[in-house]
Amino acid sequence: MAAQKLSETELQQALNSLPGWQIKEGKLYKEYKFKDFSTALGWMVTVGVHAEKMGHHPEWFNVYNTVRVNLVTHDIGNAISNLDVELAKKMEENYK
Amino acid sequence: MAAQKLSETELQQALNSLPGWQIKEGKLYKEYKFKDFSTALGWMVTVGVHAEKMGHHPEWFNVYNTVRVNLVTHDIGNAISNLDVELAKKMEENYK
Repeated sequence: MAAQKLSETELQQALNSLPGWQIKEGKLYKEYKFKDFSTALGWMVTVGVHAEKMGHHPEWFNVYNTVRVNLVTHDIGNAISNLDVELAKKMEENYK
Repeated sequence: MAAQKLSETELQQALNSLPGWQIKEGKLYKEYKFKDFSTALGWMVTVGVHAEKMGHHPEWFNVYNTVRVNLVTHDIGNAISNLDVELAKKMEENYK
């Protein structure tokens, strides 16, 4: 799927459907908290497989039970695209 | 295993046996490069299982084929310990 930069309106609509997500330094950002390290790592694997399938990958930081995610699309000049929103939705779906 | 802060000498000896590792902002730091995202993620899983077994976890950032690792021991006042060196060695062993 080709990446398309979102308009301000599309971005606002997307944020309304993504609890806890915000725009931070031009990227789609969320801090996830898990029960423990293994749970965090397991979630990263599940989400990572989806990311690989999409050909669209996150920037993410993990320490113990915390994962901080930044999503942005390099191919369209570091803007937020439909692919970032799609990946964020996959992250939400797999977060319990 | 209990964490023990390393002396300057012990730290230097450890660094000599850990190619590409350095001290950065008081932490043991290395940037790993992999063939692709899947290889990077697979390595994180392997290393993560070791970390969990040790009860000692990395701070790490991933984007695509890059993983940046910071190791420090919170329990002993954010100093570098034998556990950090042990985890760094596991990372090296599993890096091809």
